[in-house]
Amino acid sequence: MCELLGMNCNVPTDIRFSFSGLLERGGRTGEHRDGWGIAFYEGRGCRTFHDPLASCDSEIAQLVRSHSVKSLNVICHIRKATNGRVCLANTHPFTRELWGRAWAFAHNGRLRGIKKWPLVFYHPIGTTDSEHAFCWMLDQIRKAHPTAPRSDAVLRRLIGELADEISQLGIFNMMLCDADTLYCHCSTHLSWLTRRAPFGEASLIDTELTVDFAAETTPDDVVTVIATHPLTRHEPWEKMDPAGCVVFRDGLVVGQR
Amino acid sequence: MCELLGMNCNVPTDIRFSFSGLLERGGRTGEHRDGWGIAFYEGRGCRTFHDPLASCDSEIAQLVRSHSVKSLNVICHIRKATNGRVCLANTHPFTRELWGRAWAFAHNGRLRGIKKWPLVFYHPIGTTDSEHAFCWMLDQIRKAHPTAPRSDAVLRRLIGELADEISQLGIFNMMLCDADTLYCHCSTHLSWLTRRAPFGEASLIDTELTVDFAAETTPDDVVTVIATHPLTRHEPWEKMDPAGCVVFRDGLVVGQR
Repeated sequence: MCELLGMNCNVPTDIRFSFSGLLERGGRTGEHRDGWGIAFYEGRGCRTFHDPLASCDSEIAQLVRSHSVKSLNVICHIRKATNGRVCLANTHPFTRELWGRAWAFAHNGRLRGIKKWPLVFYHPIGTTDSEHAFCWMLDQIRKAHPTAPRSDAVLRRLIGELADEISQLGIFNMMLCDADTLYCHCSTHLSWLTRRAPFGEASLIDTELTVDFAAETTPDDVVTVIATHPLTRHEPWEKMDPAGCVVFRDGLVVGQR
Repeated sequence: MCELLGMNCNVPTDIRFSFSGLLERGGRTGEHRDGWGIAFYEGRGCRTFHDPLASCDSEIAQLVRSHSVKSLNVICHIRKATNGRVCLANTHPFTRELWGRAWAFAHNGRLRGIKKWPLVFYHPIGTTDSEHAFCWMLDQIRKAHPTAPRSDAVLRRLIGELADEISQLGIFNMMLCDADTLYCHCSTHLSWLTRRAPFGEASLIDTELTVDFAAETTPDDVVTVIATHPLTRHEPWEKMDPAGCVVFRDGLVVGQR
């Protein structure tokens, strides 16, 4: 299995604190040694870093940890390969363009039989079940909406239905982002936490690191972090329901079921 | 105007020597301060780094310079913005997936009116004329070949014709790669050089750096470097003809006109 980390905010925010906790699970406190990747949105642009090496040994991960990138939306993934060999092409997050938007996707779980589902427009570059599921979702979204729908609610409902359909095949904990909105689906494990004023301190579970968010934020900041398992102690992480979908925008929940 | 750098080889090769020369032109020996980017292929996977900062000031560029990535195909670009503001979404190389392959593209020049050319499937995420041209090319390739053509020659001819058509609108020095083949089109400036045994020394023009390729290679290596302007002294760079197309695979020219 893999681990996921996402962030959705109302102001560009630095993910390095949470990322540092996740990295430890990539071979040190966790067994996810088969690569890692991260997608940061900056405006409409999406910057990705990928490495098929374990994150705890990766020079690129050290760069990301030492380099401040502020972003409204981030998706990050550390991999324990279950389907598809260890190589760059099989390293999440995957990205594709739809409606002139950069979509990014990462998945934790196993989907038996998904590769038999026919694809029309988007095709996997690697060989994972995850990338096939992502291509299938975008195919269905494009088929239903050749141009972007005006209603965010319509898109949220469709994405929720597609996630439900895929999750019939196995475990589908996933994060999907279109630069504005972060869609999460939980089969087994996904927890989230919203930080807002008054900000306090937080300490990572996986390594000795504490941050005082009061010193790093303004009173209007709203920052939501989503992770496979809580990354910090003594903060009110909320566990998503199995088969639940939670959709975030500007750091807030805009859809949930 | 911008500057381009490409590499196509028969064995995974480190681009850092050439990249170091190009970086100097990103604000130090050249005026291309408006961002830079690089796409490295590793197998079918494509790893990109982008930064809207000048390459000579970019921490990410320093990482790429200090981190050995060996690749069969690389496309790199430093930007002097002429169309589209300075931001991540407008930073080359651009990437899209077609037929389950990752395509990367970078362009130097200006294309007046290209944004009026209709797009069907691929749409720009940023606002440059370059990304519009890339989307248009992929649209035409997909329209002509819903699945990958068996003949490489058919694809080479089509890409050459599309490049000719686009270059009617202005200057179209470009590099396009599908993981195996590197397609180059020259309107004004593009030069290339093939290094093979017996390997010798080379010295960069833009900074004090000399490398002895004999120590870095095996006798079977074939490495072609393509750049807007030659990067080294005392090597036999060949200037491409205006309106010329040269196509490389495994370090060798496989098509030229």
